[in-house]
Amino acid sequence: MLSLRSLYTSNGDRPELRTNMDVDYVIHFKVSSDRAEAEAGFTQLIEALTRVGLASEVRNGDESSLLVFVKVASEKHLANQIYRERVQDWLYGVRITAPEKDVGKEFTNQPVSEAERLRTVYLLITKPKNEGGAGITPKIGQWKDVVSVFPLHNHAFNRQWIKQWSTKYFLNEQDLDQIRDRFGESVAFYFAFVQSYFAFLAFPAAFGFGAWLILDRYSWFYALVNSLWSIVFFEWWKKKEVDLAVQWGVRGVSRIQRPRTQFRWDHEAADPVTGEAVKVYSPVKRLKTQLLQIPFALGCLAILGALYVFCFSIEIFLSEIYNGPFKSYLTFTPTIILTGVLPTLSTILGNFAEKLTDRENYETSDAHHASLVQKLFIINFITSYTPLFLSAFVYMPFGNLLVPYLDIFKITAEKFSSEKTIATQGFQINPDRLRKQMIYFTVTAQIVNFALEVVVPYAKRKVFSEVEKAQSKGKKELAANDVPEEHAFLERVRDEAKLDIYDVTTDYREMVVQFGYLSLFSAIWPLTPLSFFINNWVELRSDAMKIAVSSQRPIPWRADSIGPWLNSLGFLSWFGSLVSSAIVYLFSGDSEGPGGDPYNIAAWGLLLSMILSEHVYLAAQFAVRYALHQMDSPGLQKERAERFAMRKQLLEESLGVEVTEKPLPPTPQAGEKITRESLEEEARRISTQGGGSPEQLFWLRQQGMDETIQIGRMLISKTKPAKN
Amino acid sequence: MLSLRSLYTSNGDRPELRTNMDVDYVIHFKVSSDRAEAEAGFTQLIEALTRVGLASEVRNGDESSLLVFVKVASEKHLANQIYRERVQDWLYGVRITAPEKDVGKEFTNQPVSEAERLRTVYLLITKPKNEGGAGITPKIGQWKDVVSVFPLHNHAFNRQWIKQWSTKYFLNEQDLDQIRDRFGESVAFYFAFVQSYFAFLAFPAAFGFGAWLILDRYSWFYALVNSLWSIVFFEWWKKKEVDLAVQWGVRGVSRIQRPRTQFRWDHEAADPVTGEAVKVYSPVKRLKTQLLQIPFALGCLAILGALYVFCFSIEIFLSEIYNGPFKSYLTFTPTIILTGVLPTLSTILGNFAEKLTDRENYETSDAHHASLVQKLFIINFITSYTPLFLSAFVYMPFGNLLVPYLDIFKITAEKFSSEKTIATQGFQINPDRLRKQMIYFTVTAQIVNFALEVVVPYAKRKVFSEVEKAQSKGKKELAANDVPEEHAFLERVRDEAKLDIYDVTTDYREMVVQFGYLSLFSAIWPLTPLSFFINNWVELRSDAMKIAVSSQRPIPWRADSIGPWLNSLGFLSWFGSLVSSAIVYLFSGDSEGPGGDPYNIAAWGLLLSMILSEHVYLAAQFAVRYALHQMDSPGLQKERAERFAMRKQLLEESLGVEVTEKPLPPTPQAGEKITRESLEEEARRISTQGGGSPEQLFWLRQQGMDETIQIGRMLISKTKPAKN
Repeated sequence: MLSLRSLYTSNGDRPELRTNMDVDYVIHFKVSSDRAEAEAGFTQLIEALTRVGLASEVRNGDESSLLVFVKVASEKHLANQIYRERVQDWLYGVRITAPEKDVGKEFTNQPVSEAERLRTVYLLITKPKNEGGAGITPKIGQWKDVVSVFPLHNHAFNRQWIKQWSTKYFLNEQDLDQIRDRFGESVAFYFAFVQSYFAFLAFPAAFGFGAWLILDRYSWFYALVNSLWSIVFFEWWKKKEVDLAVQWGVRGVSRIQRPRTQFRWDHEAADPVTGEAVKVYSPVKRLKTQLLQIPFALGCLAILGALYVFCFSIEIFLSEIYNGPFKSYLTFTPTIILTGVLPTLSTILGNFAEKLTDRENYETSDAHHASLVQKLFIINFITSYTPLFLSAFVYMPFGNLLVPYLDIFKITAEKFSSEKTIATQGFQINPDRLRKQMIYFTVTAQIVNFALEVVVPYAKRKVFSEVEKAQSKGKKELAANDVPEEHAFLERVRDEAKLDIYDVTTDYREMVVQFGYLSLFSAIWPLTPLSFFINNWVELRSDAMKIAVSSQRPIPWRADSIGPWLNSLGFLSWFGSLVSSAIVYLFSGDSEGPGGDPYNIAAWGLLLSMILSEHVYLAAQFAVRYALHQMDSPGLQKERAERFAMRKQLLEESLGVEVTEKPLPPTPQAGEKITRESLEEEARRISTQGGGSPEQLFWLRQQGMDETIQIGRMLISKTKPAKN
Repeated sequence: MLSLRSLYTSNGDRPELRTNMDVDYVIHFKVSSDRAEAEAGFTQLIEALTRVGLASEVRNGDESSLLVFVKVASEKHLANQIYRERVQDWLYGVRITAPEKDVGKEFTNQPVSEAERLRTVYLLITKPKNEGGAGITPKIGQWKDVVSVFPLHNHAFNRQWIKQWSTKYFLNEQDLDQIRDRFGESVAFYFAFVQSYFAFLAFPAAFGFGAWLILDRYSWFYALVNSLWSIVFFEWWKKKEVDLAVQWGVRGVSRIQRPRTQFRWDHEAADPVTGEAVKVYSPVKRLKTQLLQIPFALGCLAILGALYVFCFSIEIFLSEIYNGPFKSYLTFTPTIILTGVLPTLSTILGNFAEKLTDRENYETSDAHHASLVQKLFIINFITSYTPLFLSAFVYMPFGNLLVPYLDIFKITAEKFSSEKTIATQGFQINPDRLRKQMIYFTVTAQIVNFALEVVVPYAKRKVFSEVEKAQSKGKKELAANDVPEEHAFLERVRDEAKLDIYDVTTDYREMVVQFGYLSLFSAIWPLTPLSFFINNWVELRSDAMKIAVSSQRPIPWRADSIGPWLNSLGFLSWFGSLVSSAIVYLFSGDSEGPGGDPYNIAAWGLLLSMILSEHVYLAAQFAVRYALHQMDSPGLQKERAERFAMRKQLLEESLGVEVTEKPLPPTPQAGEKITRESLEEEARRISTQGGGSPEQLFWLRQQGMDETIQIGRMLISKTKPAKN
């Protein structure tokens, strides 16, 4: 098993990690209870693979599964496939320059990266049969016994990668290019985004630290700077994203989208662009389903909101009113309820979101994914920020008014309790509550999260594998069947087959939620960006580790942006302008704010400050966009230059016209000659015909330049000069 | 002289209007007081024209000017020029399909329109010498005696055009295509915009009429529908604009921009795209100058605002307080002041705006023009809407409070007057003032404007030419010099030389200002859209008339959108959501609104309704954009299809690869054969070398598909099947 140690110590350079045996993909095949069915399924699998030019070897998996190793039978066949993909890219405008006519030369100029190879092979395995693939769709329909199709980690690279990253402060473009070459643009975009975000955080981290030292609490100046920073970061990233896409040759790749196998169509029609038959699903039908998102969002808000309000009330009651026995233990009740109920609820809602998205029936995986992400964002938004919203906009301003209603808990408790009355203390709004909560979310929660993400899965796997080792005698039997020289390699592959599938969505979600804390609430505690800055340095490395150590190697998909998360970021940045200003307005000044008596809060003052803040935000966004738009981006420039060069070359090649931007200035003689000649010829023609049209006669009055000049001079001498 | 009559009566089919004598351009050359200088200048002019292959004829102009007639000497030379332009368009991505290799075939497929011909000749005359033109820049530097360079009207077309348009209700695409072929895309875009706007107005016109009959005054429902309508129209037009640009083959033409001759550069550098040397001016320097726009806008607001406030105060005083002698005459004082001062002030500010824009030193005419338009928009915004703003947000709510301050006029007047006291009446807010003002702006002002635009110039010209005829004896002498058969034609050209240059900016400005009234204030009077609907039917025709009858034929420039006005429209649409909601909040309910006592107006209620309205607006905009984005636009579809076809064709031609979207599915045999062959060959090689790498051995354990299947079955029989 690949362990952390193995990545760092030279002893870790174990032979089974040194080679992947030229394997492109491993197919994990589960043997179902019906053995005849299993044999038939297996035969079909091998036949399907062979039919598309893939070689296969089979070995034992665990007790009830097989491992099918797949590689491309002929490198030439693969090269053809890749070349075909590149040509298609060019046809759809993803590449600007056409691939070289000579296939060999093309691959010398642009070598095939690991990611490109693996993507092509994966498509060969999974594409539908009518598009030239083997049509193997893991876990679905005919292929329900195929548990997973995964590439093997390149451990030599992984080791070097983790080593390198853990010893440098900033990642550069080469580091990202490496990721792209190994794990595809989709993963590379995530790292590029987090790296940019991390680098940008340096400023608010420093500024926030200064603000924490010098400025008042809930400083409007800090909120303003923070908001402006979020605009600059967001707009800059939008530009950077395009740049990266051009640099990686994937701009517009989201247009060549992977079709969803589950898509159900109404009818077929000719594609207006390519003329091919395409499957059509009525957009009106889809729009109707999409409208269900509104009740869905409201439902999420109601359910999760109710849970939070309930826990929040208990918490206030127990921590700030209740004074009876077991107080110190009872205080944890809400936390326990939340920890127990929230994940379950989130999962249920998440599944519901997935069902809803399925019903929206998108043609492509990308559209499906974008729609799902939108719904997940709503759930995450509510679960992440509700506690702070409740504290800031309910507890702090209206606490004194609402707390009497909490007596319901006291009454309920008294009913069930043996004691007649439950001891309480006088309620006092806790002015530090908001800040404490914020510190919890920005420091404690991040550490807990890190533990959940990296340490726990690692420990879990360690324990499980020990347990398995101890329990299973079957395993030993299986191992005994291995050819000795392959044994270590096969054991390693068996371990990799058990790992989780890496899902970049989870990581994006974490970053976007973090950005939300920063944008919405960091006015509460200006050390927030500093905490995130530190966290993200670790996050980048721990995510790398997660991919290298505790996940299967991801399928290297392409992408041309961070996709649907961009909208979420934009929304949070804008919403931050409203929330921050409201927080600053409510709590700045004296430490308790205008809290206590809600009637003291001039509603119009709050509204005005929010309006003002929002419009400053929108104006600043406009200005930043304009300023960034003025700067030429190297990526787009490159694109334009390439497009220009391509057209020029094509023109020279196929039209045989020498293209010079500047037409050759004709010599004076040439112009004159043309005039003379044409006039003389015309005059000749006219004289033979006799007469001539008024137009011809008009142009024959002055023969050539000299006569015109002469007559002009004569006319000038007759004019009354204009008064200047 | 071309008169309205001549366009409609068959007698108007006069011979001098039937032919343009093959003239492409007329250069109006003023003879300066220094005759030697004039002769030298004239000689240079003719030489410069001849040098670029243009033939010229000279005739008398008026008493102190000459008319130089220019045509292309050789049609082949012109064809080459046009072909070169088309190739350049393709190089820069304006055209998708490459021009045909065979020039003749290209022109058969895509004939040269009048507009294309005239534009090419104009560029030949005006482009700098180093770019292959004659470098003639009217009124500037060396060419200060060149008053104008203009093409001759195609009167046969004009007559038919006006006739056709005045007899049909709706213009269709063919009508716009005609305009495009004759006057270029820049003018065609204006007509396309006004036509679309007119067609869209049908809905609010009908709805407004209904609202006027049924709904209360200042109805929020009307304001809401109006605001939604403006969103739909704006978003729809943005799409339509792109469609038209694609259809007319000018999409992205604004990127190939005409360089400004007045541009001053810091240094030269290589263009990153084309590699050519380009002139560079520091964008930071420019940004600094651009920042001056802020004090400029504030200055305009202060100056024009002060003028309006002053006139407004006098008006209120005289019409609603003052009750002394001459009241009925004195009431006109503010109108007289405004009519006298406002145009002068606008002109001064306009000139100032032009100077400012000059200092911003743009590379291209388009950028210069866009920046100028932005400034003109500010001036127009203030001059057009301030009276209504003052009435709605100062007079109506605060009238009673502010009117006492107007006593200053009384005191001043008493000082200068012989009478001791000036009679006054009690002040009463006039609740109808706002509506009356609105009716003035939407009906009266539009009619006055029509008169100023069409009737006055026509009458003026008529009178002037009569006066001239009577006065000038010189004219008769000049006319005597004309060859008799050319006389009528020359007289016509002399008339056209005197006409104004058509400036599409003025017309756009008018429409944009109108859209502003609709978007900002039409809640005051729901018949506004109906009035505009009627007005715009006339406007379309009168603008056509203006071009055909009272302006020189415009240079047929290209354009790919309505340019900077788009932003102005967007701004007005958004601002409308704020202003309308404020008006509705202030005045709906009782007929006088909450006016009278400002303290009755809950500031927060006003703010809340504005916020709400704005956010409803933004959300609706988002939704409309999304919905429109879902619809495929025929233009973009065409563009994609063309691009795809072009790439496919180029691929087939130059790469010699047959491109099928679907790779041929390899036959089962083929795949198997590859596997077998490669394996056998490998096995042979290994056996000769002895041994082999672990990788090679790994893949040789199972020879071919059948063995894999066999071994797989064997392994399956040994597994413990998974529990389902």
